[in-house]
Amino acid sequence: MTYCVALILDQGMVFASDSRTNAGVDYVSSFSKMKVFERPGDRVIVILSSGNLAITQGVMELLERRIHDQSPNLMEVESLYDAALLVGGALREMQGRDGQVLAQYNIDYGASFLVGGQIAGEAPRLFNVYSQGNFIEATLDTPYFQIGESKYGKPILDRVITRETPLDDAVKCVLISFDSTIRSNISVGPPIDLLCYRHNAVRVDRRLRIAEDDPYFQTLRRLWSEGLRGVFATLPAPP
Amino acid sequence: MTYCVALILDQGMVFASDSRTNAGVDYVSSFSKMKVFERPGDRVIVILSSGNLAITQGVMELLERRIHDQSPNLMEVESLYDAALLVGGALREMQGRDGQVLAQYNIDYGASFLVGGQIAGEAPRLFNVYSQGNFIEATLDTPYFQIGESKYGKPILDRVITRETPLDDAVKCVLISFDSTIRSNISVGPPIDLLCYRHNAVRVDRRLRIAEDDPYFQTLRRLWSEGLRGVFATLPAPP
Repeated sequence: MTYCVALILDQGMVFASDSRTNAGVDYVSSFSKMKVFERPGDRVIVILSSGNLAITQGVMELLERRIHDQSPNLMEVESLYDAALLVGGALREMQGRDGQVLAQYNIDYGASFLVGGQIAGEAPRLFNVYSQGNFIEATLDTPYFQIGESKYGKPILDRVITRETPLDDAVKCVLISFDSTIRSNISVGPPIDLLCYRHNAVRVDRRLRIAEDDPYFQTLRRLWSEGLRGVFATLPAPP
Repeated sequence: MTYCVALILDQGMVFASDSRTNAGVDYVSSFSKMKVFERPGDRVIVILSSGNLAITQGVMELLERRIHDQSPNLMEVESLYDAALLVGGALREMQGRDGQVLAQYNIDYGASFLVGGQIAGEAPRLFNVYSQGNFIEATLDTPYFQIGESKYGKPILDRVITRETPLDDAVKCVLISFDSTIRSNISVGPPIDLLCYRHNAVRVDRRLRIAEDDPYFQTLRRLWSEGLRGVFATLPAPP
C-alpha cells in the first residue's frame, strides 16, 4: 500500500509520500512515489502516485519520454489542468496495455495520482486523478487530497488543517498524519518524501527525504505520543 | 457504514457501537447494533453487528427465536466459543437464504459480528465473527477488535490501549475513537451504545446510550480537540 497527501493552502503547498511497496508480505521494498517536473520560473509540477507499481512506473515513463518526443507534454502545457489530463491519459494507456492481462490474474491494476504545483501565468492548482483517468481539483473548501491508505491519517488533518494553516504547521501535521498511518498499517513506511512549495515562487522551496531515524521526525513522534497521552490523562472520567 | 469496537482488558470488557445505517445518502436512519443476552449470575453475551442490515437483523431474529424453540441456543450454550459458533451459523443461514438474490443486484451481503462476554464457569472471552461465519478470538496480545469503519478510530486505540488499561480509561479512549471516526466519516453517527462488563460479575455493569448532545461526550470531544491543538502548537517547527 501507499500513503500520499497533498495540501493547497494560502501560503503554498505541501506534498508528501511514503516509500513502501509490497507485493505480498514477503516482498516489501522501497520506491519513491514522488516525481517533480521543474523549470524554475516557468513551472513546478509534483506528481504523487499510489496503486499498482508497474502501472504507476509505466505512467511516469510515458510522461518523461514524451517530454523529449511528443507534444503536448508536461514541460509544455500552459495549465496544470492539462498536466492532469496528460497524467490521466497516460494512466488509461497503461491500463489499456496491461489491464486485461492483470485482470485475468485478479491483480488490481488500479492507480491514482495527485498532481499539483504551478505553471507561470496561472494560479497554483492541485488535482486528484482517479484510477479511471478522470480527475477533480481542490477548491477553497477542500484544502487537501489523500490517496492510498488514507484513513488512519485523516483525523489529524481534519482537526488541524484549514486554508490559513502556515506551511510549517502543515508540514508538522502531515508528518503526524504519516506517524499515525505508519503505526497502524505496516504496508506504509518511511522514508517519507516531503516537498514544500511557496505560491508564485515557481521553484521548489524545500525537498527532503525523511528516514525513520531522522532526528526531527523522531522528536515529533515522541512529543506527539507523549502529548496525546498527557491530554488523555487529563480528560475527566466517565460519570 | 458502522463502527463497532470491543475491548477485553484485565479488569473487564467495553463494547461500543454507533447507530447510523444508510442505504444510499438519501436514506440514513438509526438502528442499534448492540444486542445483549443476559441472565445475571449465569451469562452475559454481547453481540455487536456490522454490515448489511437486513442480514444482521435476520441473524438476530434467528438467534432470538431459537432461545424459545431450538437447542442449542445462546441461553443454553456452556461456552462463549459455542455462542460464536451459533452466530456464525445463523449468518451462513441468512446468507444462504438471501445471498444469491442480493449478489444478482450487486448488493454487498457481507456482515460481521463481535461476540463477547462471560458464561459462568468459563473465563471472559471475545470473538470476531467474519463475514464467512468463521471466527477468531482475542488473546493477550490483541486486546481489542473493531468491525465496520475501523481505520479512523484505530490510531488512538493503538496509542492508548493495553491489557492493563483501567475500564474508565478504556471508555474514554473508545469515545475518542468514535469521535475521530464520526468527524471523518458521515456514515458513522451517534447515538453510541456503550456497555461495560467487569470480569466475573456475570451481569452487565453499565449500559448507556450516548446521544450527540450528551454533556460528558461533548465535554470529552471539546477537551480532546483543544488538547490536541495545544500539543500540536508546542511541537517544534521543522528545521
